[in-house]
Amino acid sequence: MQLDPTACWARLGAAGHGVLGTVHARRGVDAVPVVYVVADGGLVVPIDAVKPKRGPRLQRLRNLDADPRVVLLADHYDDDWSQLWWVRLHGLATGAPPTAPQLERLAHAFPAYAADGAVPSVIVLVPEEVTGWAAGTTR
Amino acid sequence: MQLDPTACWARLGAAGHGVLGTVHARRGVDAVPVVYVVADGGLVVPIDAVKPKRGPRLQRLRNLDADPRVVLLADHYDDDWSQLWWVRLHGLATGAPPTAPQLERLAHAFPAYAADGAVPSVIVLVPEEVTGWAAGTTR
Repeated sequence: MQLDPTACWARLGAAGHGVLGTVHARRGVDAVPVVYVVADGGLVVPIDAVKPKRGPRLQRLRNLDADPRVVLLADHYDDDWSQLWWVRLHGLATGAPPTAPQLERLAHAFPAYAADGAVPSVIVLVPEEVTGWAAGTTR
Repeated sequence: MQLDPTACWARLGAAGHGVLGTVHARRGVDAVPVVYVVADGGLVVPIDAVKPKRGPRLQRLRNLDADPRVVLLADHYDDDWSQLWWVRLHGLATGAPPTAPQLERLAHAFPAYAADGAVPSVIVLVPEEVTGWAAGTTR
């Protein structure tokens, strides 16, 4: 069944992780696994100093500089296909230094982010469209 | 640690599901959850008649008609970040009717696909680049 926006946001908030797709001039599209928190009607995706990264300026941020359009897919796979669901969010995203409230929410959701300097920047995703689907008939 | 191509393909083959990203003219990038099998040095993604779809010609196929560049991300999330891993494949993809060997492999991997007419078409993904990463030091 299609999920209404309220159900979509409930599942997005509970999941806390998904795949972020961005536009890349040569490759067309990039995708990276991310964690996030729901805040201010959108998503806050940490660029952390905890998990390993390839360089000082991440490709995902360079992609956003050139084209802010993104997609975020949170999905649940299960060998029992009656348990499948996904929520997809299209929107615009920009990199920014984290605000204090964003840092608090991130640290609350992900204890590794409680350390000083763990999240030097964030991607703020402003949604334009949210859709979702779940197998079966219950939320 | 970075995964070598052999380790990437082993994980891709074992996962059997991931997120397919395609280029969309207006939205920039689309993403859908997919299942797949590894075959002929690439991936075969079923367009099935089992899970619900929105119309006779899927957006993902219309996207590929306009731009065949895709990304496929298979990733494992865990609250224990020492268990994280992902494998990402960039390449070109096209829709096609399934071949008999492709149908056999799909039905072997996903029993729901054994029914006649369950997979009317497939997306064949020819890889150009595969990269991967896993937390920790063991495969």
